[in-house]
Amino acid sequence: MEKVNLQDKLALFSQHWTPKIVGEYNDSYVLLAKFKGELFWHKHEDEDEFFMVIKGKLLLKLRDRDIWLQEGELFVIPKGVEHMPVAEEEVHMLVLDLKSAKHTGNVVNERTLTSYERI
Amino acid sequence: MEKVNLQDKLALFSQHWTPKIVGEYNDSYVLLAKFKGELFWHKHEDEDEFFMVIKGKLLLKLRDRDIWLQEGELFVIPKGVEHMPVAEEEVHMLVLDLKSAKHTGNVVNERTLTSYERI
Repeated sequence: MEKVNLQDKLALFSQHWTPKIVGEYNDSYVLLAKFKGELFWHKHEDEDEFFMVIKGKLLLKLRDRDIWLQEGELFVIPKGVEHMPVAEEEVHMLVLDLKSAKHTGNVVNERTLTSYERI
Repeated sequence: MEKVNLQDKLALFSQHWTPKIVGEYNDSYVLLAKFKGELFWHKHEDEDEFFMVIKGKLLLKLRDRDIWLQEGELFVIPKGVEHMPVAEEEVHMLVLDLKSAKHTGNVVNERTLTSYERI
């Protein structure tokens, strides 16, 4: 593996809500993503999800509270917890997901990806 | 779990080479650490290790090459690969390790920790 410079990798794509694989850590993918707008409520029944904001500000809605994440802040969404990410302005994210986790968990629709591009 | 602000957590300790637990992600600990000086050569036979520089510059020596990691750069040390971190000046690190991983892997000496403090 080569080292990953986050800014160099983030410059390689512009699509929103399409995580890109930049590395692997044990049974997880190391992903970079750009969010803008709303995703939708979903959960990953058996997998925690690691979110860290690289740039911008993310509203992570949970059913019982809102979490605002800014640059230099991270949060692990526990397995089974419904969540909806909302980005009023574009947000750049470092995400770790188990390889077994499906993109949008228990909800599958036209925005669901079945695999991630490697950059 | 609460969100983690990296700077707030890094302000809570000053010891070098003593990773602190700030969260859990599946079977991993999410750790913050401050490095200064040299650790020593070691490897984790069965566990990849995730290193990301939050502040400063880390020389990560592998047996076949040197990797310089700066702020905003990450590297996953593959399982079984010998490495030695060297920090000429203090470096602040985000580290992910499987809970099964021992602090200094195959090498145990007076600098080896058997558990990590939670902050």
